[in-house]
Amino acid sequence: MKDRIVLGSVTTPKGFQAAGVRCGLKEKGTDLALIFSTTPAAAAALFTTNKIQAAPVQWSKKQIMSGHSRAIIINSGNANACTGLQGDQDAEEMAALTASALSIHKEEVLTASTGIIGKPLAMDKIRPAISQAVAALSTEGGEQAARAIMTTDLAEKHFAVEIDIQGRPVRIGAMAKGSGMINPNLATMICCVTTDAAITPPMLDRSLRLATADSLNCLTVDGEMSTNDCVFILANAQSGNSLIDAPDEDFDKFSQALSAILETIARAIAMDGEGATKLLRVQIHEARNPEQARQAAKAVANSLLVKTAIFGQDPNWGRVVSAVGGSGVDLLPEKMAVSFAGIQVLHNGQPIVYDKAAMKEALQQKEIVIEMSLAAGSASGQVFSCDLSYDYVKINAEYHT
Amino acid sequence: MKDRIVLGSVTTPKGFQAAGVRCGLKEKGTDLALIFSTTPAAAAALFTTNKIQAAPVQWSKKQIMSGHSRAIIINSGNANACTGLQGDQDAEEMAALTASALSIHKEEVLTASTGIIGKPLAMDKIRPAISQAVAALSTEGGEQAARAIMTTDLAEKHFAVEIDIQGRPVRIGAMAKGSGMINPNLATMICCVTTDAAITPPMLDRSLRLATADSLNCLTVDGEMSTNDCVFILANAQSGNSLIDAPDEDFDKFSQALSAILETIARAIAMDGEGATKLLRVQIHEARNPEQARQAAKAVANSLLVKTAIFGQDPNWGRVVSAVGGSGVDLLPEKMAVSFAGIQVLHNGQPIVYDKAAMKEALQQKEIVIEMSLAAGSASGQVFSCDLSYDYVKINAEYHT
Repeated sequence: MKDRIVLGSVTTPKGFQAAGVRCGLKEKGTDLALIFSTTPAAAAALFTTNKIQAAPVQWSKKQIMSGHSRAIIINSGNANACTGLQGDQDAEEMAALTASALSIHKEEVLTASTGIIGKPLAMDKIRPAISQAVAALSTEGGEQAARAIMTTDLAEKHFAVEIDIQGRPVRIGAMAKGSGMINPNLATMICCVTTDAAITPPMLDRSLRLATADSLNCLTVDGEMSTNDCVFILANAQSGNSLIDAPDEDFDKFSQALSAILETIARAIAMDGEGATKLLRVQIHEARNPEQARQAAKAVANSLLVKTAIFGQDPNWGRVVSAVGGSGVDLLPEKMAVSFAGIQVLHNGQPIVYDKAAMKEALQQKEIVIEMSLAAGSASGQVFSCDLSYDYVKINAEYHT
Repeated sequence: MKDRIVLGSVTTPKGFQAAGVRCGLKEKGTDLALIFSTTPAAAAALFTTNKIQAAPVQWSKKQIMSGHSRAIIINSGNANACTGLQGDQDAEEMAALTASALSIHKEEVLTASTGIIGKPLAMDKIRPAISQAVAALSTEGGEQAARAIMTTDLAEKHFAVEIDIQGRPVRIGAMAKGSGMINPNLATMICCVTTDAAITPPMLDRSLRLATADSLNCLTVDGEMSTNDCVFILANAQSGNSLIDAPDEDFDKFSQALSAILETIARAIAMDGEGATKLLRVQIHEARNPEQARQAAKAVANSLLVKTAIFGQDPNWGRVVSAVGGSGVDLLPEKMAVSFAGIQVLHNGQPIVYDKAAMKEALQQKEIVIEMSLAAGSASGQVFSCDLSYDYVKINAEYHT
């Protein structure tokens, strides 16, 4: 499936329009994105589990309960988090203004914000820009929208995939921003997915949860969870496939495609992690259960010592086993095994001789896989992350509130 | 109590001798330390909870169950971890050789190692050095011993305190090493405490657990837990105080002094954290319970974004509340408060105006306190840590296995 991901966007599926315009919250560039389905759409979303949740997250959580939505309005440059009652009113006003210009109900508009925490939104800048965004809506606007949600991101992240469901082509498009799980006071990961599939809200929700579990939920740049994380999906049925309303073969096909595109997004975010020079993929094998596999993988991926070792291109397995040993998962120390970039370095708990020249070359690649077997069961799990370089410290120490 | 801590060492208490000699495991400097009580001593210890435990940890865990011990032999430069059966034999041989030279039983000797993981100990270097260490034992040897256990530490860490128990002066001396919770493949924190107090093994164990809970267990440099952490205490009764055998006033007095010296050690380790430029103290107030207070404090102290903000001297409260919000503890977002270096920046969940010039000056200090009130209860807790600088990345990326 992964090989079928193309450089499309949220406007690749039929019946979706998007725009990215400048409202002036960021110092430069576009900073207001709008996605619109020309017809009613099923909708599902997942949100940060941080106990401190931004106003737009709270607004969108309420609206998504209906299972239907038609538009997503997103500003960058200000997270609208820790902004009190005023923040709630501003999030609602963003939805209301967008709805009014699109002649839909405000309850059909999802909102998201990303940027500095604790400052009121400059609504005087946002109000006129919403009208401009609606006026600029186009079936070619996906890339502009992807650009308008970037903060410290260095690369735009937008992809699409086309699958076939009972003879009908069905498209899924996605865009995301995120460069740390939290960026320098610029919170955080936002991902918008569109599809022209016909699928019921409960099946859409189920598919999103399934697909996220193995992709975005397996992503960590710095172990930090934001106040603003959200993933939205709108499905407007314009492909004309027979409605997916049960966990059948069509559902599986759709979910696999959604998984593939979200995994591509997750990899793109990790690769664009603040200061990252390498994509780090941690695979845990022979874990007691899938939860322990992921827990161990996250412990390795979040270990500063492992991340700096990967930056330094050193196969430091001692740091890997120590991170896993401290993570609380079950393991058999005398049976564990570790490999870096496909080259085994630890077998039955003890170091083995390996080809140092081959290892040196392997660790120069842009994507490094660390594998560890725990000898505690048969479950596997993986996590996407990145290395930790001087630039992470620079980006986050030089930033001032 | 803290004001009574002096620059003593493990040989400050009566009846203790120590030595630090070179065996050649490190590239330069001394790397074998020995502490000896001239008379039998009660003993207690705490060990890493990492599931992968070094051979000397396993040896010492067995011996400490007797509640008595007379000597501690420690090498730096090699952790003797992930070394299989040979490692177990080497740890036991270190104890046996030390015991033989001191004319005591090997079960009375505790062992510890710190350094690279996964390499067999060069016993041919250690054997002759043990004899030298025994020959060099002296009541002036505390500082030499403290120096011999250093790895990436920049500063020696040894202190002492004298208290009065029913008219008799009682001394406690301590030394420690540790610069990250794990150092660059050089595992990790080792702390040895001596005292001439008369105290039963169960009371000594209880006192050590109490004192560690608020000191060494409240310490995090990089959130990593080592395979080799251990804290030892020997009490040889030479001060002649009436035996402490119950949790009475004398016990409390002793425990407070032990707490104070271990807190001094914890602060010294944090200040000497790899690449650290500042000591970071995180205090959480109004938490649901003490566990949640500590959990929240650790989340802040381990947050890369908070650590880099402190390095950059920025009062970035958004990163603090986001770290706590993501840590799983209870809090009331609309009532939470945050201050940096004594200057409040957040009140009732919203930012307040503060004196920027005063803040700028305050954040230039070497010790920075971040305080946060959660409005969820009445418990407090604090954690010692340090900032994250370019040098942490440098130290850990340039190190090669």
